[in-house]
Amino acid sequence: MDKTNLTTPLTKRRSELLTLKAYRLISLADVILYDALVSSEIIKLAKPTAVKIFVGKRAGHHSLKQEEINRLLYRYALLYPVVVRLKGGDPLVFGRGGEELLFLTSKGIEVEIVPGISSILGASAGAKVPLTHRGLSSSFTVISGYNPEKHNWEVLAKLETLVVLMGTKYRREIAKKLIENGKSPDEKVVFVENATTEREKLIFSTLGEVAQNPPKVNSPALYIIGSTVGVGMEVLKAKTTKVFCETSA
Amino acid sequence: MDKTNLTTPLTKRRSELLTLKAYRLISLADVILYDALVSSEIIKLAKPTAVKIFVGKRAGHHSLKQEEINRLLYRYALLYPVVVRLKGGDPLVFGRGGEELLFLTSKGIEVEIVPGISSILGASAGAKVPLTHRGLSSSFTVISGYNPEKHNWEVLAKLETLVVLMGTKYRREIAKKLIENGKSPDEKVVFVENATTEREKLIFSTLGEVAQNPPKVNSPALYIIGSTVGVGMEVLKAKTTKVFCETSA
Repeated sequence: MDKTNLTTPLTKRRSELLTLKAYRLISLADVILYDALVSSEIIKLAKPTAVKIFVGKRAGHHSLKQEEINRLLYRYALLYPVVVRLKGGDPLVFGRGGEELLFLTSKGIEVEIVPGISSILGASAGAKVPLTHRGLSSSFTVISGYNPEKHNWEVLAKLETLVVLMGTKYRREIAKKLIENGKSPDEKVVFVENATTEREKLIFSTLGEVAQNPPKVNSPALYIIGSTVGVGMEVLKAKTTKVFCETSA
Repeated sequence: MDKTNLTTPLTKRRSELLTLKAYRLISLADVILYDALVSSEIIKLAKPTAVKIFVGKRAGHHSLKQEEINRLLYRYALLYPVVVRLKGGDPLVFGRGGEELLFLTSKGIEVEIVPGISSILGASAGAKVPLTHRGLSSSFTVISGYNPEKHNWEVLAKLETLVVLMGTKYRREIAKKLIENGKSPDEKVVFVENATTEREKLIFSTLGEVAQNPPKVNSPALYIIGSTVGVGMEVLKAKTTKVFCETSA
């Protein structure tokens, strides 16, 4: 079978990374409160009668404050049998899921958390960059990059695979801090723009290059720093003809 | 709607955490090579004519060596249109996905990686313990615990949320090392046995307790260490009546 035959399975459609459980809950929901990174094709899975409310943040500011979202969730949870709070990624990885969970629980509402494909896993798969790899890395650390001052870079520079979310703006500062604290300027970096979507784009670089002359990167993007990035580079350079799928359950 | 009404959506069925993409590929596959942590209900999704080969490891030793798995994957990829390598979790998080990817790519086989719900995300959702939480943690680190000697505990003890995979056996040593290197004995810990399955079990503890008198924990289990574990404890103590779903896309 040649590559072309597998076009359909290999097409990047965000909705295909929904879990069966999320899919079922979305189609059952009476109310869906959803974020900016949730694609319209997913919202279309809801019942026509479902109340659909956009509560996302755009360009760094919330269209609704977290407290307002909490109040809305509570109000709808009292009114409707199935209320779904839909996030773009995993609710408990930089998703404010914990805050909504605590608020609703304190009001007597039981919350079920359905895990989702975090952009960390989506970008790793898209870039073919493992987060751990025998002989290269037996740990990985995920940090937020929107406020680099609050991290301990002396510690972070000593770690293996590093994944930076929400850090496009400060990519230069972060690369500099890591180098200043001992990471090699040759350390490999890959930026993954729009992970898991049709617009997914990979930009391979090095810490030194990012510190000196950072490549243009558009948000949303995350980056992976470390020697496992070399796996993705090697795969990219290889000449391949047959297609094969590595998946998980 | 009372809790009972939501029994079905809330039932923990591992197969419900398959992505739609993985589900589709499994039902299309001519050959499936699967690991020990893949449940039988998932294997049943395959076509009756599909070749299903168990290549998992059990009790710490591989039933097949990685090199043999690589060779099998290559042979089947040449013979059949759709070959699926099915892992229990995400292929690129302690899943040897990178090794198989490199081997097959070097042989001219293109590999598509389909991300999956890692036990990290599944356990976090099950325990209702966020990996990041505003004011508590803006990073998390995932390590393997089967060979504690190779990690730099001085560095790891300075991190926020810490997730230990394959570390049940050495939980006492790991807790001791973290305390010796400055983590508080009061630091909260939750062990999650059999994450995302019907046998999922939570054991809340502290580092001090684990170092002194470790609770009984059965494998497979992972543990989360850090202040966000308090969120799960608070949720567990709360009296709730209504059920609500937090999900992701």
